[in-house]
Amino acid sequence: MTLNVGVIGAGMIGQAHIRRLAERVSGARVVAVADVDAERAKQAAQPVGARALASGEDVIADPGVDAVVVASWGPAHAQHVLGAIAAGKPVFCEKPLATTEEDCRQIVAAEVAAGRRLVQVGFMRRYDPGYRQMKAVLDSGDLGAPLLIHCVHRNPAAAESYHSEMATQDTAVHELDVVRWLLADEIVSAQVVTGRSTAHRSPHLIDPQVMLFETASGVRVDLEVFVNCQYGYDIQCELVAELGTIRLPDPAAVTVRHRARIATEVLQGWPERFAAAFDAEFAEWVAGATAGRLTGPSAWDGYAVAVASDATVRALHSGRIEQVHLSTRPAFYAR
Amino acid sequence: MTLNVGVIGAGMIGQAHIRRLAERVSGARVVAVADVDAERAKQAAQPVGARALASGEDVIADPGVDAVVVASWGPAHAQHVLGAIAAGKPVFCEKPLATTEEDCRQIVAAEVAAGRRLVQVGFMRRYDPGYRQMKAVLDSGDLGAPLLIHCVHRNPAAAESYHSEMATQDTAVHELDVVRWLLADEIVSAQVVTGRSTAHRSPHLIDPQVMLFETASGVRVDLEVFVNCQYGYDIQCELVAELGTIRLPDPAAVTVRHRARIATEVLQGWPERFAAAFDAEFAEWVAGATAGRLTGPSAWDGYAVAVASDATVRALHSGRIEQVHLSTRPAFYAR
Amino acid sequence: MTLNVGVIGAGMIGQAHIRRLAERVSGARVVAVADVDAERAKQAAQPVGARALASGEDVIADPGVDAVVVASWGPAHAQHVLGAIAAGKPVFCEKPLATTEEDCRQIVAAEVAAGRRLVQVGFMRRYDPGYRQMKAVLDSGDLGAPLLIHCVHRNPAAAESYHSEMATQDTAVHELDVVRWLLADEIVSAQVVTGRSTAHRSPHLIDPQVMLFETASGVRVDLEVFVNCQYGYDIQCELVAELGTIRLPDPAAVTVRHRARIATEVLQGWPERFAAAFDAEFAEWVAGATAGRLTGPSAWDGYAVAVASDATVRALHSGRIEQVHLSTRPAFYAR
Amino acid sequence: MTLNVGVIGAGMIGQAHIRRLAERVSGARVVAVADVDAERAKQAAQPVGARALASGEDVIADPGVDAVVVASWGPAHAQHVLGAIAAGKPVFCEKPLATTEEDCRQIVAAEVAAGRRLVQVGFMRRYDPGYRQMKAVLDSGDLGAPLLIHCVHRNPAAAESYHSEMATQDTAVHELDVVRWLLADEIVSAQVVTGRSTAHRSPHLIDPQVMLFETASGVRVDLEVFVNCQYGYDIQCELVAELGTIRLPDPAAVTVRHRARIATEVLQGWPERFAAAFDAEFAEWVAGATAGRLTGPSAWDGYAVAVASDATVRALHSGRIEQVHLSTRPAFYAR
Repeated sequence: MTLNVGVIGAGMIGQAHIRRLAERVSGARVVAVADVDAERAKQAAQPVGARALASGEDVIADPGVDAVVVASWGPAHAQHVLGAIAAGKPVFCEKPLATTEEDCRQIVAAEVAAGRRLVQVGFMRRYDPGYRQMKAVLDSGDLGAPLLIHCVHRNPAAAESYHSEMATQDTAVHELDVVRWLLADEIVSAQVVTGRSTAHRSPHLIDPQVMLFETASGVRVDLEVFVNCQYGYDIQCELVAELGTIRLPDPAAVTVRHRARIATEVLQGWPERFAAAFDAEFAEWVAGATAGRLTGPSAWDGYAVAVASDATVRALHSGRIEQVHLSTRPAFYAR
Repeated sequence: MTLNVGVIGAGMIGQAHIRRLAERVSGARVVAVADVDAERAKQAAQPVGARALASGEDVIADPGVDAVVVASWGPAHAQHVLGAIAAGKPVFCEKPLATTEEDCRQIVAAEVAAGRRLVQVGFMRRYDPGYRQMKAVLDSGDLGAPLLIHCVHRNPAAAESYHSEMATQDTAVHELDVVRWLLADEIVSAQVVTGRSTAHRSPHLIDPQVMLFETASGVRVDLEVFVNCQYGYDIQCELVAELGTIRLPDPAAVTVRHRARIATEVLQGWPERFAAAFDAEFAEWVAGATAGRLTGPSAWDGYAVAVASDATVRALHSGRIEQVHLSTRPAFYAR
Repeated sequence: MTLNVGVIGAGMIGQAHIRRLAERVSGARVVAVADVDAERAKQAAQPVGARALASGEDVIADPGVDAVVVASWGPAHAQHVLGAIAAGKPVFCEKPLATTEEDCRQIVAAEVAAGRRLVQVGFMRRYDPGYRQMKAVLDSGDLGAPLLIHCVHRNPAAAESYHSEMATQDTAVHELDVVRWLLADEIVSAQVVTGRSTAHRSPHLIDPQVMLFETASGVRVDLEVFVNCQYGYDIQCELVAELGTIRLPDPAAVTVRHRARIATEVLQGWPERFAAAFDAEFAEWVAGATAGRLTGPSAWDGYAVAVASDATVRALHSGRIEQVHLSTRPAFYAR
Repeated sequence: MTLNVGVIGAGMIGQAHIRRLAERVSGARVVAVADVDAERAKQAAQPVGARALASGEDVIADPGVDAVVVASWGPAHAQHVLGAIAAGKPVFCEKPLATTEEDCRQIVAAEVAAGRRLVQVGFMRRYDPGYRQMKAVLDSGDLGAPLLIHCVHRNPAAAESYHSEMATQDTAVHELDVVRWLLADEIVSAQVVTGRSTAHRSPHLIDPQVMLFETASGVRVDLEVFVNCQYGYDIQCELVAELGTIRLPDPAAVTVRHRARIATEVLQGWPERFAAAFDAEFAEWVAGATAGRLTGPSAWDGYAVAVASDATVRALHSGRIEQVHLSTRPAFYAR
């Protein structure tokens, strides 16, 4: 049985999802594509034999569409996700789930009302083999309780349109989610400290930023976000527990001894760094959507990350420690 | 368009291929399965919705089968591969291509006569990202000409049925192929040196064995085969060139600091170690079979490895350096 | 020419210094030892052929003593260092230089008045080959300006007498010095964040602690101090600059593949971890003392670290960011 | 008590030993230096306050000399070592102990006749912390019996005067000794295989060479000698035992992430690579000479390596496996 997928949004990330569903994920095919730019929708749809539709609403409503991928721009996410829930169709929503806390809350409410998991948010880190191993070791209990997590998130360079709040909204959100998932815990406060910025940045940007989070159970998290580090895309994570530590590995790469150096190459972008994670993420989504019940990062995760992200942006502006106020987690989202 | 695959042989490796084609490879489905054990064929066919057929010949002949996977026992490979070529159907053949040099030669002749690449041999190492990076660095020319390759092939433990010749026939064949592929060169001689064997082996087995190969262009290769190393499945490869060296990475794994040690886990078997390679191998085969022209390891590769493997077994028995005598490589198999 | 050294304080660290000067450092011998416990002085003096004297003052005054090592307990440091300066004898003072800011200031004043560098403080990290390489790479300018430093300082276990302020006073002081030295910069503020403490600690202790420092030029430093990490003595440091990063290596150790793990051993204490640094530290001190002009960590460094340490302890208590107020650096201590 | 050392030979290695004894080794001073070039002797003697003497014999005979370092050219070693034994003075002899098997045998006989260990041969690898750790792990028995050793010995470039036999005589001798020491075993056969040589060599030189050794207890050793590898000085060693393996670490060095690479620097020569080993070697020699009984690599070790080296050179010329014939090890040299 093949899952017929409709994709809303045919920008860079939408196109990547279309290609992945067509070429690398078993059990699914893309049958419909919509974009605000009709021409772009047509160009994305054609190579995979899908139809280009006029709007996201048309995709959701299409009887030939079993499940929906939302890769439109952020502010449109909420309406499409709510539409899919209303239509009873499983939906994969790229992060963010929505751009306001209120929209996230509405999605959570709609899904709870629908009575089954219809939403999966695109937090792919949870599918990375390295993070999975970290969680397996932590959950084994061999190292005792977690106490600290040190994170690093570096990109080689940021576009001029990238502004200081995006260090949280676009970048740190991945750590906000993966840390919550690793610990099965929620973020309760955020602080941002800044110092000298790199010369290799847009003048309006504060880069790097060091973010500090605290979880409900008292775990301390620090995160370096540095989006103009020049040398590559580099994700590091070290979890410190009572009896030992666990460190995320660098991607495997050949070691070259040459010109007085022992060297490995650093990847330059997240599409390569997390290729296996994206594959696994969509495989799980396709399996869940086919079975009628999703299992990946939930609307609640999307909501909780949005609230923590808002607090972090406030902390950047205030220079103070800002509290994260979450609603009560519905039993529906029991871990 | 979906490739309809028939699988001959539903033992452990055949079942793994069936699952992989059904669950992890896009663009293909398994439609027919045969095995000498009819019940086993049925049990393998049923979960993926395929038909169980009475024989390999039936699979090849079945009009619903576009392409064939041969995973029967070695001595049957030649007849099934020749059958598939005769039927004009692309065939994936698990290693070995055939169990005698003469059979390999016949397959090569049949494929050349057919006029297009219909055979892909299951040398999955070429699809491992680490070996691919090694080849890319070597082919870039930055390090000059290759001079030496040091290889290690360790398994945690071998079954009692594993005998000393299998160190070559079952184990070293992977290095024989991947070294030929890395260097675009042929093996011309083989030597085996042995010393003290491990206490953790069957009494009849010589383990470890150190094998020495020479290539046509003068590259020296040494290979440790140690199939009862106890601690894990461990594949190492270091290529030494004029200006530097390239080393295959260990699989990425979390680093745990605990009890006075910094440690990573070692995988225990080839299915996990080469999972990504198997995925890529079948993706390429499906794409090639769909397009009507295969591109992976060829019947010639199967033949050349078989001849080198025979010489290595002779060297084990003789204690001397044994020459490898290949026929002339048909232009059909131009690199 | 051999430097005749008198040692004040024959506790664990004093004994280690005596052994090192006697056995591992060329060009010096220990000729006199004093301790508040006369018996202990005798026992430390005898194996190296030194005389046991009645007091630190006697050591300083002894005409056969060319240079003095102060390894008494912290509160006595100031009087001995000031005594050595008054006597015009080069002095090596274990950290801390003194236990109050005021005492440190007096030592600085006395040395400036003396007109030549007579004091070296026992900040041995600067002599560690790894930190030296870090500084060499940073100072080469290849990586641009420094922006961040991430530090980790872990001990396997702390004695019951170790209290929360000692995480700064005994432990973090090494990072306070080495960061200042790496950057040729001063600490201007300190913050301490705490969360869940490990179960493997004395109940009165806050452990781990995360400390945040800012330097005059805007570099942000974070430091994990975790003195009951159980698994070993582990010092990590990563410096992030505009074009790249530099990471302190783990000590070289054999890699063992055994029981499904690739592992290296972690050292268990600072004497082993920094053995080479201690050797180099004393070799430089002996050379400087023999030449009549010291070159290692200065009284100013001891003072600046003491002031930053005081601010960090205040920050632990206040939960706020505390400023570090240094006097003007005398030209005498020009870098 | 200070050991008064006389040094015979003031070439590059002799000068290095003089500096080391004067500056880095405790408990010794250089009091006399001789060289065939009287001017060179004077220049080496003067900075350390030693006397320049006319000949090696004068150094040995000098009543102010307690112990002798022989760093003259190889063919002169035997006469100086025999002279020192005759004079009852402990002697450190740079490798080789002598240039002929017969001379080595005479030295062994003379030392046995003298009735106490007076000779230490300059095989410094045994003092390298990495090899020491390897031996400690092997000797712990945790990994069972040793089966194989893989060695790599690479130099960045060789002088034109370096000829193919020197790959054994100058280079492989270090592995011949350290392998014997690791295993407490003797080499019984040698083979050399060669293939394509690097373009970056003198035309007369075969480089690289792969050497194969077998020990009395059946351990197989392979060794790559590559003296024009261009990229650095690189020593690798992996010991394979029944339950696991032990690998010599690369020297600790900072990791730099820069320009899309994670890199560490490779050292360029043995003086830096084995600096700590040289220090420890001379510290042990000084302690032994002071105590009147040496404990390091013995005249027997020098002899056994010479015989194995001769067989290896024969193997290079013959292309065959050559046997190593040792005399019976005198009980005097019991391990």
